[in-house]
Amino acid sequence: MSVTRTVRPETAHAPIASTQIPPVPLTIEGYSVLHQMMRFRWTAWRTLAPAQKTEIVDEAARVLGKMESNASGQSGLYSLIGHKGDLMFVHFRQSFEELNQAELHTAGLRLSDYLEPATSYLSVIELGLYESTIKIYSELAVRGVEAHSEEWNRAIKETLARQKEAMRPRLYPELPKHRYLCFYPMDRRRGEDKNWYTVPIEERARQMNEHGLVGRRYAGEVKQIITGSIGFDDWEWGVDLFADDPLVFKKLIYEMRFDEVSAVYALFGTFYVGLRCASGELGKLLGGQVPKG
Amino acid sequence: MSVTRTVRPETAHAPIASTQIPPVPLTIEGYSVLHQMMRFRWTAWRTLAPAQKTEIVDEAARVLGKMESNASGQSGLYSLIGHKGDLMFVHFRQSFEELNQAELHTAGLRLSDYLEPATSYLSVIELGLYESTIKIYSELAVRGVEAHSEEWNRAIKETLARQKEAMRPRLYPELPKHRYLCFYPMDRRRGEDKNWYTVPIEERARQMNEHGLVGRRYAGEVKQIITGSIGFDDWEWGVDLFADDPLVFKKLIYEMRFDEVSAVYALFGTFYVGLRCASGELGKLLGGQVPKG
Amino acid sequence: MSVTRTVRPETAHAPIASTQIPPVPLTIEGYSVLHQMMRFRWTAWRTLAPAQKTEIVDEAARVLGKMESNASGQSGLYSLIGHKGDLMFVHFRQSFEELNQAELHTAGLRLSDYLEPATSYLSVIELGLYESTIKIYSELAVRGVEAHSEEWNRAIKETLARQKEAMRPRLYPELPKHRYLCFYPMDRRRGEDKNWYTVPIEERARQMNEHGLVGRRYAGEVKQIITGSIGFDDWEWGVDLFADDPLVFKKLIYEMRFDEVSAVYALFGTFYVGLRCASGELGKLLGGQVPKG
Amino acid sequence: MSVTRTVRPETAHAPIASTQIPPVPLTIEGYSVLHQMMRFRWTAWRTLAPAQKTEIVDEAARVLGKMESNASGQSGLYSLIGHKGDLMFVHFRQSFEELNQAELHTAGLRLSDYLEPATSYLSVIELGLYESTIKIYSELAVRGVEAHSEEWNRAIKETLARQKEAMRPRLYPELPKHRYLCFYPMDRRRGEDKNWYTVPIEERARQMNEHGLVGRRYAGEVKQIITGSIGFDDWEWGVDLFADDPLVFKKLIYEMRFDEVSAVYALFGTFYVGLRCASGELGKLLGGQVPKG
Amino acid sequence: MSVTRTVRPETAHAPIASTQIPPVPLTIEGYSVLHQMMRFRWTAWRTLAPAQKTEIVDEAARVLGKMESNASGQSGLYSLIGHKGDLMFVHFRQSFEELNQAELHTAGLRLSDYLEPATSYLSVIELGLYESTIKIYSELAVRGVEAHSEEWNRAIKETLARQKEAMRPRLYPELPKHRYLCFYPMDRRRGEDKNWYTVPIEERARQMNEHGLVGRRYAGEVKQIITGSIGFDDWEWGVDLFADDPLVFKKLIYEMRFDEVSAVYALFGTFYVGLRCASGELGKLLGGQVPKG
Repeated sequence: MSVTRTVRPETAHAPIASTQIPPVPLTIEGYSVLHQMMRFRWTAWRTLAPAQKTEIVDEAARVLGKMESNASGQSGLYSLIGHKGDLMFVHFRQSFEELNQAELHTAGLRLSDYLEPATSYLSVIELGLYESTIKIYSELAVRGVEAHSEEWNRAIKETLARQKEAMRPRLYPELPKHRYLCFYPMDRRRGEDKNWYTVPIEERARQMNEHGLVGRRYAGEVKQIITGSIGFDDWEWGVDLFADDPLVFKKLIYEMRFDEVSAVYALFGTFYVGLRCASGELGKLLGGQVPKG
Repeated sequence: MSVTRTVRPETAHAPIASTQIPPVPLTIEGYSVLHQMMRFRWTAWRTLAPAQKTEIVDEAARVLGKMESNASGQSGLYSLIGHKGDLMFVHFRQSFEELNQAELHTAGLRLSDYLEPATSYLSVIELGLYESTIKIYSELAVRGVEAHSEEWNRAIKETLARQKEAMRPRLYPELPKHRYLCFYPMDRRRGEDKNWYTVPIEERARQMNEHGLVGRRYAGEVKQIITGSIGFDDWEWGVDLFADDPLVFKKLIYEMRFDEVSAVYALFGTFYVGLRCASGELGKLLGGQVPKG
Repeated sequence: MSVTRTVRPETAHAPIASTQIPPVPLTIEGYSVLHQMMRFRWTAWRTLAPAQKTEIVDEAARVLGKMESNASGQSGLYSLIGHKGDLMFVHFRQSFEELNQAELHTAGLRLSDYLEPATSYLSVIELGLYESTIKIYSELAVRGVEAHSEEWNRAIKETLARQKEAMRPRLYPELPKHRYLCFYPMDRRRGEDKNWYTVPIEERARQMNEHGLVGRRYAGEVKQIITGSIGFDDWEWGVDLFADDPLVFKKLIYEMRFDEVSAVYALFGTFYVGLRCASGELGKLLGGQVPKG
Repeated sequence: MSVTRTVRPETAHAPIASTQIPPVPLTIEGYSVLHQMMRFRWTAWRTLAPAQKTEIVDEAARVLGKMESNASGQSGLYSLIGHKGDLMFVHFRQSFEELNQAELHTAGLRLSDYLEPATSYLSVIELGLYESTIKIYSELAVRGVEAHSEEWNRAIKETLARQKEAMRPRLYPELPKHRYLCFYPMDRRRGEDKNWYTVPIEERARQMNEHGLVGRRYAGEVKQIITGSIGFDDWEWGVDLFADDPLVFKKLIYEMRFDEVSAVYALFGTFYVGLRCASGELGKLLGGQVPKG
Repeated sequence: MSVTRTVRPETAHAPIASTQIPPVPLTIEGYSVLHQMMRFRWTAWRTLAPAQKTEIVDEAARVLGKMESNASGQSGLYSLIGHKGDLMFVHFRQSFEELNQAELHTAGLRLSDYLEPATSYLSVIELGLYESTIKIYSELAVRGVEAHSEEWNRAIKETLARQKEAMRPRLYPELPKHRYLCFYPMDRRRGEDKNWYTVPIEERARQMNEHGLVGRRYAGEVKQIITGSIGFDDWEWGVDLFADDPLVFKKLIYEMRFDEVSAVYALFGTFYVGLRCASGELGKLLGGQVPKG
């Protein structure tokens, strides 16, 4: 069937037996995620009396405190380094509807008079299932089940449900409490010559697996959350890294850049680095005091 | 005749018999469409007294209510997620003249003092007729009718009129009422090596058909409206997807990205995701209340 | 002589006899042209009393009226659709000096307090003379006249003068009165592999001629004015299309996109679509009334 | 020695005898140059009383008058056409320190309350010495002097000093008084396939010489000043053209675009076109009067 | 082991014996570095009374004075030339946490009411250890120690510690006091054909060494500090050059551009050039006096 045909790149990889399986890896999804990067209007803020500042900070801290952990998910606040923004909210929620609510709540805070949106990123926590995909696609092919037939669809649905159940903690994780966060969006290259989407699925699976081995070596030092954003935002994926030592971000990403999947197929967007600011620390962050002395 | 010559890509596709037919697929057009993405000035809005807000919302809701369904077409309002805009108007109209009127009417609302245009997109609902095109072009070629002769033009005109009549509901559709909308513009690649516009029309038709099969599998979950914007805006097409579950946007677009026509030839612009806000819900949306508690 | 050498692309075209003629096609020029895209400050405008608005509109309409047709050229005003601008002035003048004057006059209007420049385009009406160029270059080559010699320069000068005289109405045209205008800038590609400027002049002439045949089929429906902007603005050419039905813009540009010269060598900038607004209609346009009802 | 090795492009050019000479052409430098493109705040300006305007213009004209010709260099003011800026200052000075002073002086003018920086360009007048470079490099190679040895350095230093003495008028030129100026920045392409910096120096010299022949044919009509900006600004060179008829800018740049060095290796930035405004004409320029009548 | 496999470029380089070593060069890191480019609000500043200016400058000079040299590192202030910014702070600190503090302190200054962030750059001082890397990787390979095994990790850790100790002065340097600074970010190209990250490590080491030889010839005239920013900011590296004569920036960077590693693999961002302004000179810089005369 023609939709299952994958275009072969000219530079052939290892020989591949079954080419009649669909090219699309299965994915499972968890939390809806919104990153909001904001600039803080220091000049206007400085004109306020201390009592006014306190009042505004108290309201914001109270709302943020509730958002930090609630029935539907969690939110976190970060102090960004550099001009790309002063504050970044990260919201994990059950749905886009609730993300929209979180956004409207933040916009309703009096603190928002001192915030202006710089940029944002909309995505959902996603796990790509290359291995399970090839396994189930191959089983179904061996059994002669036609792709996208009712039987095929049912088997895929069951696989996804089983995986989703097993992966629940990774799909609905707690927002890590590490001191530093690094966020960046990325694409897989669709160049005229080097095009990830025309590479056979088995070869993509091999490269992704190799890539994962590097990540695993950093398991104790950095926590990684991958979100998918095809159809939601301007890059295909968003990556959040959490660590107590920011140097690990550089070490990890530099090492990964030599993996075939990154070296050849990864395109990166803007990088944001922030320090976690718990709701209770907001006042201190916005004090902006000139050092005594 | 030379204008009917299509340039052959170096990597030849399946052998093609009739190369003397013009390369341009016929299209038929329906509603003129304008997307208006707006930022909302929350800071200024918050300075208003409740009575003022009510008055402004009432005027806007009344005008929007009329626009939602009228003799010339329909308009819809969406609450966008993220920094790309707060509100998005989608206008379907009989002509660009009426779109311009809709735009001037929105600009005339008192609510517009709190709106600033972020971006916009101008296009017309379009159906590409690859299959009918090849059929009629081939028939005419067999009959020896020269391309662009009077007889040829008359036959094409009749084909278009017949198709337009048959496709009327898809050219002048109702604006779907689904909870979520995803809008993005796109181009067909004209790379130095991979160039959609130099691929023979039969091969383009084959790829578009394959692409359509994927879409059809999502028929129950997502509604798609394609608009053409060559000569009107900065990308060649605009795509609107409507669904009750936004996850379907990702599933559909990801699966399609592996189609040859998307993997090799599609370039994507900015993605916008919004939640439908009926005119009667505008007040609630702009309340922007801090959650109690 | 080495400067007359044209670099051969690797994919050779039809055999070309005389390669010793210069690669530069002759051009003749007419009106200096400035497009000014402006945003209108609706919020500030709405704060004015009706009498103030009338006064400002009257001054602007009077000046625009004079500009619409005067000794040195003409100006036209358009209501743009979408966020790229609200108003667009198009000025045809005898010189850049007079364009600068037109610009300063517009900046001097009280209406300018409500206008902010969004973008602009500076160019001159240009006719490319591929056919005459090859004819005269070949004649001179046959006669053994060395390129850029005094005799050669004199012959070229005479050719240009003759052509300019013959083409006068197309170089100094009236600004068409059609309801719709479409403006966009464009380049000829200079890619690493596909490079218009290294294609032999005879092959360029052939492709441009083919391209012109498409345009001619739309002669009754659309009027086209080509302006050259190499050395003046950021693209090489600016194109103005005028029509009563805007759909023709899409039909024409889409059909042309399959011409070899467009498919392979054209790069397009931003597209602007506007509705003509005669000086007498300015008040109506800026009324911005909310529809009654 | 390895640093003198030039990478060979795959499409080999004419055979080259001596490849052991360094690839870097020598350059000599003159005036430090700053272009400042500014927008003029017409709206704020119009609120001033005539007497205030006169006072502000008088101060600016007095300072500009001094800058037009002084011990350290010269400055010129231009009225730009289009939205890229209203005014452009061009400063020629003995050092970057003095450019910084010129910049601070302009910022200190009361007129600066009505100016906002749009863009700028920092560079130094530069003469590339391809011919002398190959001559001295070859002589030294023949004499067996190792590149970058003390003897080599001394010989190069002497060559540069001699050239600088001889070229003094072109390194420290008077700012031309022509009516029109055209400024644009440019790069030499470093593409994956076509890369100027890997072309052998002899071939680069040949192409630059060919390029210069075109320029020389326009000698009477246009004056050209080349400035180098590697390490100073975002493009490698800045080009200023001065002429009384702006059409010459288009003719010259279009003709040059077919030279191999431009067709294949030139990348162009933004183009700015302005009319000279002597200090004494500033009041007239900023009058911004609506035409009587 | 597959992760150690480096992809071979098609144009093979010198034969390479040991290909089983990992492709990632070791690095050691020192100071955390933040560049803050700011625009100065001259218009607002000019409205202040001299006493107010003095007060604000005194506070800023006092804080900057402390920052110029303190326990945790140093800060420097530069007067930028051109529109990209008026002032640039460069902060060297022990951690990102302290950079964030420095940033908040600057934001807390009254002077910040007259500063707006234009851009910034976040990085850490980095030394790439190509030579030591190949040495230790080869030794370990010869000894049969598997990459990333415990023994391997221990040996690498010891190497890094030894190098870090030896290189301490270069990792925690004093901020040079030269008159001029040039800052720019850069990437190594990952093109479809020319891709630094798929070049064998021995070949990369060879090119980097060649590159270093050029730099060493400028040792007396220019001081260079390389910072790494993978995972921190939008380019892979940031380069600071310090010199008393800014012409040296151009000479050095131009000469390096012909190195294979730069010619083929370097991509450059925006260039910033500034003059050092010691804390005691701030008042003079912000005086912005119109020259007497």
